[in-house]
Amino acid sequence: MRLRTLGEKEVIRAIRREFSKPRRDIVIGIGDDAAVVKPGRKPFIFTKDLLFEGVDFITSLHPPFFLGRKSLNVNLSDIAAMGGKPKYALLGLGLPSNLDLTWIKEFLSGFHSAARKGGILLIGGDLSSANKISISVTVVGEGKNIIRRSGGKPGHILFVSGFLGDSKQGFLLLKKGFKLGDDKRADPLLKAFLDPIPQTSLGHELARNRVASAMIDVSDGLSVDLLHICDESGCGAEIEFEQLPLSPSLSYFQKRPLPLALHGGEDFQLLFSVAPRNLEFISKLQRKFKITEIGRLTSKKGILLIDRKGNKKSLEIKGYEHWGRSPV
Amino acid sequence: MRLRTLGEKEVIRAIRREFSKPRRDIVIGIGDDAAVVKPGRKPFIFTKDLLFEGVDFITSLHPPFFLGRKSLNVNLSDIAAMGGKPKYALLGLGLPSNLDLTWIKEFLSGFHSAARKGGILLIGGDLSSANKISISVTVVGEGKNIIRRSGGKPGHILFVSGFLGDSKQGFLLLKKGFKLGDDKRADPLLKAFLDPIPQTSLGHELARNRVASAMIDVSDGLSVDLLHICDESGCGAEIEFEQLPLSPSLSYFQKRPLPLALHGGEDFQLLFSVAPRNLEFISKLQRKFKITEIGRLTSKKGILLIDRKGNKKSLEIKGYEHWGRSPV
Repeated sequence: MRLRTLGEKEVIRAIRREFSKPRRDIVIGIGDDAAVVKPGRKPFIFTKDLLFEGVDFITSLHPPFFLGRKSLNVNLSDIAAMGGKPKYALLGLGLPSNLDLTWIKEFLSGFHSAARKGGILLIGGDLSSANKISISVTVVGEGKNIIRRSGGKPGHILFVSGFLGDSKQGFLLLKKGFKLGDDKRADPLLKAFLDPIPQTSLGHELARNRVASAMIDVSDGLSVDLLHICDESGCGAEIEFEQLPLSPSLSYFQKRPLPLALHGGEDFQLLFSVAPRNLEFISKLQRKFKITEIGRLTSKKGILLIDRKGNKKSLEIKGYEHWGRSPV
Repeated sequence: MRLRTLGEKEVIRAIRREFSKPRRDIVIGIGDDAAVVKPGRKPFIFTKDLLFEGVDFITSLHPPFFLGRKSLNVNLSDIAAMGGKPKYALLGLGLPSNLDLTWIKEFLSGFHSAARKGGILLIGGDLSSANKISISVTVVGEGKNIIRRSGGKPGHILFVSGFLGDSKQGFLLLKKGFKLGDDKRADPLLKAFLDPIPQTSLGHELARNRVASAMIDVSDGLSVDLLHICDESGCGAEIEFEQLPLSPSLSYFQKRPLPLALHGGEDFQLLFSVAPRNLEFISKLQRKFKITEIGRLTSKKGILLIDRKGNKKSLEIKGYEHWGRSPV
């Protein structure tokens, strides 16, 4: 059977089946935003992300400086989703032999600017020739109060940071020929795709104060990522879809912004659940961070969209699927 | 300027220039077999290797089970070269959508068999679609007495484990149509390329007993890797080229085995220097491991080949160069 017909879930299942043996020093293995191990007294968080030319980015549309930043920042988003603090990075680059040194220098300069901002050191990696640009980044972090996907409970309130759907709309505009600086209303959307910012401080605050019961970063799309929280927590969820945080720019360029907010992907915002007793702390955080209440976890399996009048319909799960088709 | 004209060294130089800021918790940064960090009391070793279809392996020639083993084992070879003990692995896979699930299952089963043998757990990774198979593996290890490339001194004796040149000859035979099981004399050569074995125990013993002053794994070819030790240690070297360990199979298939032993690459043997006072310990190790004395470090820069009669000529450094040409 071919990957195209199987999909990503089946491959991850095959990997989990092959490597199922638990060991005492593994706190969190395959299946969360990042892995957590505890070889001594301190727990360490590991995450790895691959970016391939033509699949995850289009070289002609993506300035190398931003691509360098994004390669690191998507990993920092995974560490943020565990509530950890990033420390070290390893960078693997597969580069075609006709690539210009300027491209590499700008890419490295972008990677470095994100590393400086995140307090991270590049400690090593690997270089190879490749037919297309291939980027593989591993980040190591530390974290005490790690937040998993599995801690949600019925009645916990769902929140999301920032705006949803901007990144996908930015990608659509880029493909239409929009460029940074051309149009002030388009710029935040283009930036959301080209240069997403990881929610490191928010993730760390939520973990440090043990406020979030479950957390994930919205990378595959809200619907898919909420389903991960529901599956791992053994819950269902209701989303008040009219409450989803949509940016003015998204509403300006897109007549039907809801599908992008639900299924767009690459938002790199944090989606988390909070027990009612901790809601007061969230109010405090809302002075510092943009956080929107979007629904709640329920005991009944499945995800429902609910409107202001209380009408419910079930949510179709669509999100980015490798070896399949993109939803938009 | 294009990568093709610049070569690998220049890119690594650009990376080192961009990321030069030292920090106290970085014991060894960019430029050794692996990176070493010490965030708490224990030092950790990190290594990352990329393998791309068509560059590092040819899918039709490389059974997926062996490729899975090799993807992990080349990283274990880096950890061995530091004298460390491998603990965790992260696996990144970029896979084309028309790939068969059987291929993936066999690859994972090979990866797992090498992980079991090495006492390693797969803790996470990333999956993506890609045009060609792309493999990125990160391994985390522990190690107390880490052996760098830089500890060699003039007068220290050079040793190498196993045989040299077998892997390259195996690759040449595979390209000629040889298959495992066809010819008993060819099998060890094919195996050396398809399924190299990391020298984990030897590396660990050398480190534990503080016997080697400098060490590297022979991955780019003896000449290039010895040059790394010389450069980092500020020495030159003499190689008694008639003493290089050549396997009976290599001598059978290859009329001129010396260039392969010197420049072949992918041997994944350990090359290390030993102070004269520690030679007795090496004699003991030689009962357990195949280790051959091949020359010595000198105070005069440059690498010389020396024959039985004492005639010297300087060694041309040729080895695997990304974005350039292969030497054989």
